[in-house]
Amino acid sequence: MTQLFGGIEAGGSKFVCILGSGPEDIRAETRFPTTSPAETIQRAVGFFRRQQDKHGGLEAIGIASFGPLDLDRNSPTYGYITSTPKPGWANTDFAGAIRRALALPVGFDTDVNAAALAEWRWGAARGLDTFIYLTIGTGIGGGGMVNGQLMHGLLHPEMGHLRLPHDWQADPFVGACPFHGDCLEGLACGLAIEKRWGRPAEGLPAEHPAWELEAHYLALGIVNWIYTLSPQKIILGGGVMQQAHLFPLIRREVRTLLGGYLQSPAVSENIDDYLVPPVLGKRSGVLGALALAMEAVQSASQFYEM
Amino acid sequence: MTQLFGGIEAGGSKFVCILGSGPEDIRAETRFPTTSPAETIQRAVGFFRRQQDKHGGLEAIGIASFGPLDLDRNSPTYGYITSTPKPGWANTDFAGAIRRALALPVGFDTDVNAAALAEWRWGAARGLDTFIYLTIGTGIGGGGMVNGQLMHGLLHPEMGHLRLPHDWQADPFVGACPFHGDCLEGLACGLAIEKRWGRPAEGLPAEHPAWELEAHYLALGIVNWIYTLSPQKIILGGGVMQQAHLFPLIRREVRTLLGGYLQSPAVSENIDDYLVPPVLGKRSGVLGALALAMEAVQSASQFYEM
Repeated sequence: MTQLFGGIEAGGSKFVCILGSGPEDIRAETRFPTTSPAETIQRAVGFFRRQQDKHGGLEAIGIASFGPLDLDRNSPTYGYITSTPKPGWANTDFAGAIRRALALPVGFDTDVNAAALAEWRWGAARGLDTFIYLTIGTGIGGGGMVNGQLMHGLLHPEMGHLRLPHDWQADPFVGACPFHGDCLEGLACGLAIEKRWGRPAEGLPAEHPAWELEAHYLALGIVNWIYTLSPQKIILGGGVMQQAHLFPLIRREVRTLLGGYLQSPAVSENIDDYLVPPVLGKRSGVLGALALAMEAVQSASQFYEM
Repeated sequence: MTQLFGGIEAGGSKFVCILGSGPEDIRAETRFPTTSPAETIQRAVGFFRRQQDKHGGLEAIGIASFGPLDLDRNSPTYGYITSTPKPGWANTDFAGAIRRALALPVGFDTDVNAAALAEWRWGAARGLDTFIYLTIGTGIGGGGMVNGQLMHGLLHPEMGHLRLPHDWQADPFVGACPFHGDCLEGLACGLAIEKRWGRPAEGLPAEHPAWELEAHYLALGIVNWIYTLSPQKIILGGGVMQQAHLFPLIRREVRTLLGGYLQSPAVSENIDDYLVPPVLGKRSGVLGALALAMEAVQSASQFYEM
């Protein structure tokens, strides 16, 4: 019998829950707005309980969550959303609440690490061991794998907040990041585009100067990630990257900024295969949650206590 | 009987070769200038042959080399120095030449990854799985571990070349990097300090404005590495960091730049233990070569063919 898993993509504005065995076999799906933790988590639990009645037992649940998160398995607050400004959600034992309610192993990671895992299992990063996944949407976030494992470290990456060159004469916009002003997120996220130009990204035509500037900032971030991590591939997802005309602009700018320094055919000859959209498209996140559930079962003997 | 290993720290201006079983047991050491590949490698081989006659057989040799290097074990040019501008050394089969001459397993990695490995085995990074080691000397380089393994990826990190904010009014210096001008290395390496101020770093007094500026640029690089990798610790070595008064300046600036974003006691309360000098000091590199030799024996069954 096919093993079934549950996935929760927990975003700041909505939750998506799915049940299935992989991208080609999704048995049920629901979405609802993110309200209070108690109400929203209860709604997810209710969905999985009803699906279990219908489809039989699940093996595990995966949660791909907005952050910041505590991912340290040795920490007393492992599985928590920690210091988010989202009202009511700071210090929420998210993974614990799901595990207790459903009595199942729970995989838990950032939305971007989950999306990276989905792309590794089923998408653009198959066979790689070191790559990153960026989402450029309302904000900018990044995750990925190094040496075949998801990136954690002290906390987890917060790739959107790189400090970059900002030519104030060419672009006097002060930046939209409440913490840093003109960090990468502050200069290049969807909110920054809207604030700078007075229109949301999807309302700007392809020939608008917004896009050259956007490509420039994203390319600055990308070269810094290349120099730091030497990824085998970079996947660019999120709402802003729905503007497919951005890809050639970014690729050209990345090559210009590298200045011939990085001697790899992956970048010098095949950059179209190096800087790519997610194969799973907008589904990377929720399928990543499913992939986290699968990982949770594989590693359950190591860390899971019912 | 104690197992003995050989280590080669291959720098652009000199080679250091040691023989021993660890930091407390170095049996022999020699250093000589880096001339042509044939002559320099032959000199290293001659040293190890003489030492083998004296001390008995070695288990393996480790090479901590200037780069860029080919570290891809599946590549036909694995073990080569690749595109270095250093005359005569481009496309040199360094690891292969040593392995063939001495008929021993050879470990091979960048000087900075080797130094990171030494600090992990014997120094500031014991017990960690994700940390970085930076050297700020004539140039700037970085390596480290993520998820318990040295950082490789597509090629290997080139951390010195980050693009950073550069306030041209406050610091009109154009930068010293031949590829990028004012990247981190271009603004903050030892050569940049000397070009900007007309005196080498060690000739500038502690109250000179050079140091605030230096701390500012290094802190910009450090926050970008923190956001990208979330390291558990950052080790700062190299000639410029011999100026110990730089550490408190850098720590303060890192905290200012983070802007309260990163909520970890490691940074907010214990930054003195977070941004640290190498415990092994100037010996990190050559001891790293020895550590690479030890790793080569451990993984010999996986990849080594005599």
